[in-house]
Amino acid sequence: MIITVTPNISLDKTLVVENFEIGKTHRVKDITAIPGGKGVNASRALLGMGYIAPVLGFIGGNTGQNILNMFDHEGIKYDVVKINRETRTCYNVVDPINHTQTEVLENGPVVTDNDINLLEAKIVSYVKEDTIVCMGGSLPIGAPQDLYVRLVESINLKGGRVILDASGDRLKEGIKGKPFAVKPNRAEVESILGFSLDSDENIKKALDYFVAVGVTLPVISMGKDGVAFYYDGRYYRITPPVLKALNAVGSGDSTVAGIALGLEKKLDIVEAVRLGAAMGSANVLTLKPGEVRKTDVDEILPRVGVTVI
Amino acid sequence: MIITVTPNISLDKTLVVENFEIGKTHRVKDITAIPGGKGVNASRALLGMGYIAPVLGFIGGNTGQNILNMFDHEGIKYDVVKINRETRTCYNVVDPINHTQTEVLENGPVVTDNDINLLEAKIVSYVKEDTIVCMGGSLPIGAPQDLYVRLVESINLKGGRVILDASGDRLKEGIKGKPFAVKPNRAEVESILGFSLDSDENIKKALDYFVAVGVTLPVISMGKDGVAFYYDGRYYRITPPVLKALNAVGSGDSTVAGIALGLEKKLDIVEAVRLGAAMGSANVLTLKPGEVRKTDVDEILPRVGVTVI
Repeated sequence: MIITVTPNISLDKTLVVENFEIGKTHRVKDITAIPGGKGVNASRALLGMGYIAPVLGFIGGNTGQNILNMFDHEGIKYDVVKINRETRTCYNVVDPINHTQTEVLENGPVVTDNDINLLEAKIVSYVKEDTIVCMGGSLPIGAPQDLYVRLVESINLKGGRVILDASGDRLKEGIKGKPFAVKPNRAEVESILGFSLDSDENIKKALDYFVAVGVTLPVISMGKDGVAFYYDGRYYRITPPVLKALNAVGSGDSTVAGIALGLEKKLDIVEAVRLGAAMGSANVLTLKPGEVRKTDVDEILPRVGVTVI
Repeated sequence: MIITVTPNISLDKTLVVENFEIGKTHRVKDITAIPGGKGVNASRALLGMGYIAPVLGFIGGNTGQNILNMFDHEGIKYDVVKINRETRTCYNVVDPINHTQTEVLENGPVVTDNDINLLEAKIVSYVKEDTIVCMGGSLPIGAPQDLYVRLVESINLKGGRVILDASGDRLKEGIKGKPFAVKPNRAEVESILGFSLDSDENIKKALDYFVAVGVTLPVISMGKDGVAFYYDGRYYRITPPVLKALNAVGSGDSTVAGIALGLEKKLDIVEAVRLGAAMGSANVLTLKPGEVRKTDVDEILPRVGVTVI
């Protein structure tokens, strides 16, 4: 079984505003709202492949209820901890005339120790031998900085495998729990390691950093340059075909979903990461973050190359 | 009795964002959300004076439910037509560093003929001889352009009195129904008449325009310059004291509320408009649009001057 965990679920609103300017009053041209967050996007990508992976996380207030209604509408299953505070909304003002994107992110609700304990108990209740947990993103206010360590350890203890996709301190802290896999993107890795991933040598050095702390399968997504990963003594680079991108947001999350699906299907690890890369590529062909069509993945997968580096 | 009618109620969100810049990603510093719209603000102002005037309008979706919860919390009474589509949200990004305000307004839900008929029936059910109806603002998509004419005529027929506060075509159309009073602001009048209200002569000409179509009490709010109005053969100017403004948004709506309260209390018309001007001034001393403290009004009212122009 695969579950996804998103501690800081958000309602992602895209406001299309022509000629967006500071200090002016504008009418929106178009507006879309969709539940977002790394685990949510991974569940959406898995649904596109015909696989149901429930979303776990915190949900509160009217915005939270709105999100649950949208999950129902999309067919995304969920098992959430209800909290008293309002789930956050993130805004992206897209200007199609000047080609700008201006984002405003709410901080999200404060969660209590009790909320955290309820989420942990809920996650652990799903975990059996071979359960795969896709987990990641930012943490809500009030969550301990070492939440990911704690959750990873609890999941490991019951024989589950975690794919952690986080950045900054959440990633640096989280790997102390020894997740089975991590899937940061290039910029996130460069930010915590302080050097540029501009050569195979540096990419290997970055993968080694994660291996050294006990990560079995470190994966770095690199946008159009594909995916680099380490497994069982070897370094690999996966190169997807070049596609005309409609919206690349959520490709990393779709890659995580694909790796999870590969593990769930007991594919070879290299094949699992190839499936991840194919799903990450397929995501750029759709508008919604995490939206993936199985027909696209079937078409892309044979064109995804693997090389040992 | 006083009722207020707001066909296009909105959830007004103020996002405080430091150094707001096009093309960047920002975290909000602070966020407040409050139900807005001209009638809503008038009901809030009346509540501040200890008078309960229910809000009538359309409400839909989770945003609508959110607004009703906020009304309950504020103590604002309402009697709304529930619609299937989502009530709109309006965003104001306030940058306290660069002193900018950037607004993005949603268009709001589409309403059907049936929704319109239900609202009209609801309004009319409240109207008796001497009922005062504060009505105004933009119209939702799907509402006929002559909605205000139709509503004003229905209210007049039952002996009620309308104070219409609208702009542009809604004002030009609405006055054809012969509302008892109108209360546009200076810019709105200048926009429909095409000349500047920079002299008493032009102000009188503007007031005459409304009198000519059958408005009994045309009132023009002019910000710090107070209020000009016509009644029963005379032109007046009302001058409130100069106050240190915290937030002037909603002062016009508070002025409408004060005029309604004066009519309800059967004050002389001049005294009713003076009360309106005092409440409009009191509103600038508070943060919320339409928020008025009775103690402020009591203190301001004796300092409001009236002159015949």
